[in-house]
Amino acid sequence: MLFGILLIGVTALGQDRPSAQTATRKHNLMPTPAVLRFLPGSLNIDSSFSVAVDGFSDDRLRSAIDRASRRLGNQVGFEINRKVSTDSATATLVVKCQGAGKAVPALDENESYWLEVSTRQAVLNAPTAVGIIRGLETFLQLLDRDQTGYFIPAVSIQDKPRFPWRGLLVDVARHFEPPEVMKRTLDGMAAVKLNVLHWHLTDDQGFRVESRRYPELARQGSDGLYYTQDQIREVILYAKDRGIRVVPEFDMPGHITSWLVSHPELGSAPGPYQIERGMGIFHPAFDPTREEVYKFLEAFLGEMALLFPDDYMHIGGDENEGTQWSKNQKIQDFMKQKGIENNQALQAYFNQRLFKILKRHGKRMMGWDEILAPDLPKDVVVQSWRGAQSLAQAARQGFDGILSSGYYIDLMYPASKHYLVDPLPAGSDLDEKQAAHVLGGEATMWGEWVNPENIDSRIWPRTAAIAERFWSQANVNDVEDMYRRLDVISRELEDLGLGHDRNVDVILRRLAGTSDTAALRTLVDLVEPVKEYNRGRLHPQTTFAPLTRVVDAARPDSQAARRLQSLVDGLLSDAPRFAVYRDQLHTTFVGWRELGPGLDRMIEASPALQNAAPLAQDLEEIGRVGLEALSFIATGNSPPEGWRQSRLDFLARAAKPRAEVEFAIIPAARELVVAASSRAELNGMAPDEWLKRVKANASGKPPDSKSSGSE
Amino acid sequence: MLFGILLIGVTALGQDRPSAQTATRKHNLMPTPAVLRFLPGSLNIDSSFSVAVDGFSDDRLRSAIDRASRRLGNQVGFEINRKVSTDSATATLVVKCQGAGKAVPALDENESYWLEVSTRQAVLNAPTAVGIIRGLETFLQLLDRDQTGYFIPAVSIQDKPRFPWRGLLVDVARHFEPPEVMKRTLDGMAAVKLNVLHWHLTDDQGFRVESRRYPELARQGSDGLYYTQDQIREVILYAKDRGIRVVPEFDMPGHITSWLVSHPELGSAPGPYQIERGMGIFHPAFDPTREEVYKFLEAFLGEMALLFPDDYMHIGGDENEGTQWSKNQKIQDFMKQKGIENNQALQAYFNQRLFKILKRHGKRMMGWDEILAPDLPKDVVVQSWRGAQSLAQAARQGFDGILSSGYYIDLMYPASKHYLVDPLPAGSDLDEKQAAHVLGGEATMWGEWVNPENIDSRIWPRTAAIAERFWSQANVNDVEDMYRRLDVISRELEDLGLGHDRNVDVILRRLAGTSDTAALRTLVDLVEPVKEYNRGRLHPQTTFAPLTRVVDAARPDSQAARRLQSLVDGLLSDAPRFAVYRDQLHTTFVGWRELGPGLDRMIEASPALQNAAPLAQDLEEIGRVGLEALSFIATGNSPPEGWRQSRLDFLARAAKPRAEVEFAIIPAARELVVAASSRAELNGMAPDEWLKRVKANASGKPPDSKSSGSE
Repeated sequence: MLFGILLIGVTALGQDRPSAQTATRKHNLMPTPAVLRFLPGSLNIDSSFSVAVDGFSDDRLRSAIDRASRRLGNQVGFEINRKVSTDSATATLVVKCQGAGKAVPALDENESYWLEVSTRQAVLNAPTAVGIIRGLETFLQLLDRDQTGYFIPAVSIQDKPRFPWRGLLVDVARHFEPPEVMKRTLDGMAAVKLNVLHWHLTDDQGFRVESRRYPELARQGSDGLYYTQDQIREVILYAKDRGIRVVPEFDMPGHITSWLVSHPELGSAPGPYQIERGMGIFHPAFDPTREEVYKFLEAFLGEMALLFPDDYMHIGGDENEGTQWSKNQKIQDFMKQKGIENNQALQAYFNQRLFKILKRHGKRMMGWDEILAPDLPKDVVVQSWRGAQSLAQAARQGFDGILSSGYYIDLMYPASKHYLVDPLPAGSDLDEKQAAHVLGGEATMWGEWVNPENIDSRIWPRTAAIAERFWSQANVNDVEDMYRRLDVISRELEDLGLGHDRNVDVILRRLAGTSDTAALRTLVDLVEPVKEYNRGRLHPQTTFAPLTRVVDAARPDSQAARRLQSLVDGLLSDAPRFAVYRDQLHTTFVGWRELGPGLDRMIEASPALQNAAPLAQDLEEIGRVGLEALSFIATGNSPPEGWRQSRLDFLARAAKPRAEVEFAIIPAARELVVAASSRAELNGMAPDEWLKRVKANASGKPPDSKSSGSE
Repeated sequence: MLFGILLIGVTALGQDRPSAQTATRKHNLMPTPAVLRFLPGSLNIDSSFSVAVDGFSDDRLRSAIDRASRRLGNQVGFEINRKVSTDSATATLVVKCQGAGKAVPALDENESYWLEVSTRQAVLNAPTAVGIIRGLETFLQLLDRDQTGYFIPAVSIQDKPRFPWRGLLVDVARHFEPPEVMKRTLDGMAAVKLNVLHWHLTDDQGFRVESRRYPELARQGSDGLYYTQDQIREVILYAKDRGIRVVPEFDMPGHITSWLVSHPELGSAPGPYQIERGMGIFHPAFDPTREEVYKFLEAFLGEMALLFPDDYMHIGGDENEGTQWSKNQKIQDFMKQKGIENNQALQAYFNQRLFKILKRHGKRMMGWDEILAPDLPKDVVVQSWRGAQSLAQAARQGFDGILSSGYYIDLMYPASKHYLVDPLPAGSDLDEKQAAHVLGGEATMWGEWVNPENIDSRIWPRTAAIAERFWSQANVNDVEDMYRRLDVISRELEDLGLGHDRNVDVILRRLAGTSDTAALRTLVDLVEPVKEYNRGRLHPQTTFAPLTRVVDAARPDSQAARRLQSLVDGLLSDAPRFAVYRDQLHTTFVGWRELGPGLDRMIEASPALQNAAPLAQDLEEIGRVGLEALSFIATGNSPPEGWRQSRLDFLARAAKPRAEVEFAIIPAARELVVAASSRAELNGMAPDEWLKRVKANASGKPPDSKSSGSE
């Protein structure tokens, strides 16, 4: 009703702004709201901007509004009035909050909000402060500009999340990330409406949290790189201010080498132990047969249960191969005596004990797929790295679960791949009650190859696309539109202090020993780090390895390669004219061909760059091949005998990883070569049929299957 | 003796590296060491690199070595062995420390070190851990590269500072800087061997430190933006690890509005008070006639004396105009009764009381020029914003002092200007004992226009040049060589996490609303923020003003303008041929002329950029004028009647500030115009005489005086 009144009150203000037409208008929001309808006109954002709070208010709400005002000011460049009034009649933005929401951010928090923007006023309405916090992010993302000034388009939004658990795992064990990295990560999460920071605090390579009960854990297990309890509390408070839960993970019974440095007596082999410097799966595991272990965990987890207020505690449980158990006669005897058949059953026994400890301290236990065992209580939550099938299976058994398979951002896949993975895939046979057990998902930033300088480019902007998957409706899945919006949100994330773009130049300047790195940047923007776990396979290193190489500057989802693909698609779709984008492609290829000499000199002068030399030579050659192909396509002349095969052979060689990176432009280049040598076939074939064949031949897949990278 | 042995042990290793010739070799060190001698050959830095400690060791030393190893690894891109041995025979770097040095970093710390690098080994020798810390920075700065790999040139360095007090003031009162900003600032300070962080913690606009005795001070006086005592301790420890003292400043009796928000009863007018949002000098001052004020200060400063372990405490004392005192009858009566003649004498009375409080808590009192009064005890330290004369006067009276006049980096002058200011200028008439009272100096980063995003570009890299002034010998004053090295150290500072370069792009992308900001960056790199206090005069704002404008992206010492000047110098010095750099100048001017259209469109689309539109138009025109001048110079044709004057008139208009910035390229452009219209005079005049005249005419100064901006 209120909104109706406001809409009736629409004035002529801002109505004449051409860019604010409602018809076919696209939004730049990420995640996409549940319901969004553009209205005529727009709300001017000028120096008269003011905020009023009408209804509930508390410190968290006030500071959220203050942050939003500051960020708005940063965007528009003029001072925004920071005094919040109660005069909702004249304010530009009226915040109507009905209550505080949960005292501690919780899974069942109501995060919904309504945002109605007319040409006169914006009204943001939510049942909780967290809903308002979500809506303020939407409000800021709506900000637009034209020649006359800044404005917010008139719009009606009703929004709420599809899944209640929308997380990001940050592994600070393999490499430590100081509190300020966690804080800027939380800022990024809040911007895209993620609501769970899953903090992977301990692993073989590091014990990263102060225990006052067992201070030697961090002192001996972290090289001095750990969070004090004050710092932990600061991060939790920072998260709470942004409506984000913090779920700590203490991985066990495996992944505990760092614990055993100070407490070897808890392990299943005698020790001594040192902090693990390698990467992979290691043998140390708690001895589940010793009561001292449970006493220790009772005390330690009890302390952590007080430090971390969230209802959930993650105990990992993954990748314990039981090697130490099998070799320990005492453990073998125990198993025989208790009738425990195998290591899996022994871990189940351990988990049962753990479950009771957590229960006593008021926590719900959470773990990876492996913890699932028939007789485990149903209030355990499963995090699946195995996939939606495994998750559905757990849901059928009555377990709550979240999906992480498909969201392993450390594997360096493009956002598009993660984006199309759904925790509840279309065609799922779960009934409504079972489906409700699928709580959501988590992107996982495993820490083997990240440090404070490059972690942002591994998390962002791709995680924004995953955040949309968790928040928005299942039918929001247009990859091209996702990428259009991702470019916008990527800049907004940098505005918040994230460094996924700016830090690339720092790495390149260090590698090159000069500030004149434009040519190197062109190359690095066209490659991506090798996928999966290939970096470690190609070049095994310890956690001490410097993360300052070409691969650390390269980013996992090459925007420049996507741009090339869309130029090629434009050109080939223009068959038989082939005029669209031809000039842009020509300029691009000439640029690559001529990058060579300057880049070669730079690489030669810098030993740390020398493994990139073959890449530079190949890019030069790709430029040449591109120009050849363009010329055949433009003139209609057929390439000489053998041209196609020799060029495809070259591209196959160029596709191989070097310097732990690989070119992301090979598919588009292959399409051009195939098109150039198939030009004659156009006679007597419909252009779109021809294009389909070209793409199929270039990808090596049959023409009816989805062609790679093109849409 | 040890070094002699090592030098005898020189092998052929690395001897054949051409880039390591000792003759006329320039170093990239900043600050320049007291004694440096290159030796033949170089020490290879490869994966066999190792460190041994031979002698004293403690946690601080070990963590300094570990940091240095990590930073070395980051540079070379391969893993550096982090295990420190005691086997000095085989280690690449041997650290010989004689003792811990002071338990708390102190003014009389011995910071000297010897560094001897042979082709076989580097040996770093120092009496204290702080000396080793200084030497490790030199070692890292020596790292060089060529096609065959990384190396350190063989060298013999004996180094120690010229002044014991080498500080940077950071004002966190006008704008708060979170702990991580302080930490990265300390990293930068350590890299250039500064040793005092002067932390301006309180002022009218903010009270930034937690007091447990008076918690309302920060709670009501900071908008929630203050350091907890734990955070303060963390920063102090971080500083200590880098051999840096932390001197807190609690400015009084003026500059205290933020204190009075919670404690109005301490003021000289009844209040109530609110946090000051403006910038300038304000009236609130402690009431020096009330015993409660001294009781409060006794308790508060006593608490702070425990929190901050440094021997010195700064009480400000500046810019108290006594307006509140003059208006307060009670204070006037008190003055009459005590025979206190004026406000200055009343402040002296206040300072006498303060001195005793600090003395009781074991602190030496420090303050700005204004605190100097005839009967003040001689162990007060004076910080002079008035100048070296004032400082020398204090030294003659027996006061220790440091110089800040000439080092006000917030005034946005180029590094060259600060670099040539000396705390003890040549020709000083102080005798040795008096001169010893001049302890050093401090750069001052006043906080009116800085935030975490732009503060680095206001401090760095210019402060590195000031750091050299404080550390290196007085005769190290070649401006051109300073700038050559400053470009190198600037990149090294970014490697440490500082953002003076990378953050420029973030500001520009936000302003432009696109990532394609190359043209805008070209413009912004050619302008500098207006000097002195003109930003506030041109555009008065509050502390809430967003610092995200063109002026915030612009940097105070345009490298691009220096480059233009050296191209112009090269061209004109090549008279009458005028071939040197002509092509480069031509390309540069064409680039500017053609920047216009794209840049204009970008500016048009972005309201926050619109005040830069006239700058873009002028840059285009400067490009045109440059091309005209080049053409006259090249052809020898005389420009038409009126050309010279009309172009100089245009440049005079273009020199005017717009968008709170001003072009830094006007002097070079004027020289070109004058040269082009004076070409005919070359006949019958020696080229260097002609050049002198051109420069004099362009600068408007007589030819015998130093011409501006050219050398």
